[in-house]
Amino acid sequence: MPPNFYAVAVVTMDGKIAKNSAHFSDWSSKEDKDFLHKKMNDSDVILVGNNTYKIAKKPLSKRNCIVFTSSVPKTKKAKENLLYCNPKKIDFKKLILDLGYKKICVLGGAKTYGYFLEKNLLNEIFLTIEPIVFGSGISLFDFDAGIKKFKLVSVKKLNKKGAVLLHYKK
Amino acid sequence: MPPNFYAVAVVTMDGKIAKNSAHFSDWSSKEDKDFLHKKMNDSDVILVGNNTYKIAKKPLSKRNCIVFTSSVPKTKKAKENLLYCNPKKIDFKKLILDLGYKKICVLGGAKTYGYFLEKNLLNEIFLTIEPIVFGSGISLFDFDAGIKKFKLVSVKKLNKKGAVLLHYKK
Repeated sequence: MPPNFYAVAVVTMDGKIAKNSAHFSDWSSKEDKDFLHKKMNDSDVILVGNNTYKIAKKPLSKRNCIVFTSSVPKTKKAKENLLYCNPKKIDFKKLILDLGYKKICVLGGAKTYGYFLEKNLLNEIFLTIEPIVFGSGISLFDFDAGIKKFKLVSVKKLNKKGAVLLHYKK
Repeated sequence: MPPNFYAVAVVTMDGKIAKNSAHFSDWSSKEDKDFLHKKMNDSDVILVGNNTYKIAKKPLSKRNCIVFTSSVPKTKKAKENLLYCNPKKIDFKKLILDLGYKKICVLGGAKTYGYFLEKNLLNEIFLTIEPIVFGSGISLFDFDAGIKKFKLVSVKKLNKKGAVLLHYKK
């Protein structure tokens, strides 16, 4: 079975993941966080960009993590469960095959999600939309390689306030 | 009954309304367009920003329109059914009360939606999410006045491909 890359993300109604680059998702609902933890527990490895890793270092430290950064030449094993990797300098799909991971949970941020979309690597997207509006901030995805299409698999209301979980497949 | 201001919008999975400012919503589904037309037919007046008006001039020309622009001192009646208005120079809510409109359909773009959110004038938002990703472009809302909260009223799958219509209220 080939590895399955899936993104898990929470956005506002206007598609923002944060007000700014230091803003962690303290605004998302308990129900979304429960779903996120379930997906993380079910994955072999968490993949994040370095900025997201720094913000979420504590909750991520117990998990297998691959962190994207341009500050290492190729890859650098920092701890038993922490691998830094420069996505521009390596064949990332080959790395994952070599490491034997089957379920890769991509948690952002925008550029990291964008990397996977650009390379058509994302098989699934789990997108929670919280019933709030930021009006400005960081958009969910950041890449520039044309329009990507997905298929909606399911829609689920997560709570009374109206967080909605959308599950898409390639 | 006080006037009801509602926004109707279609976005990508990443919260974009267009690739750039000249990009009209030719990428949205037939089912979303049908819904949009239903909401327009049911409204007393369409409210748009000048850029959106220019792009959609033909389909909008038969309808009652108020167009936001900074190029008129206060208001300017251009045709029987077309009123230009400078939102920074007038009391917009008073204007609507004077004109007697009850159902005001706000169609964007981002700054025009933002004006209504900033002033807490939007009672409802009808948001269609199409199962595609732009990766870059114009975000749904453009304003900077803190977080706004809504309540989800309903979720509806519009078609097989997976366009989803979310209805929010203040």
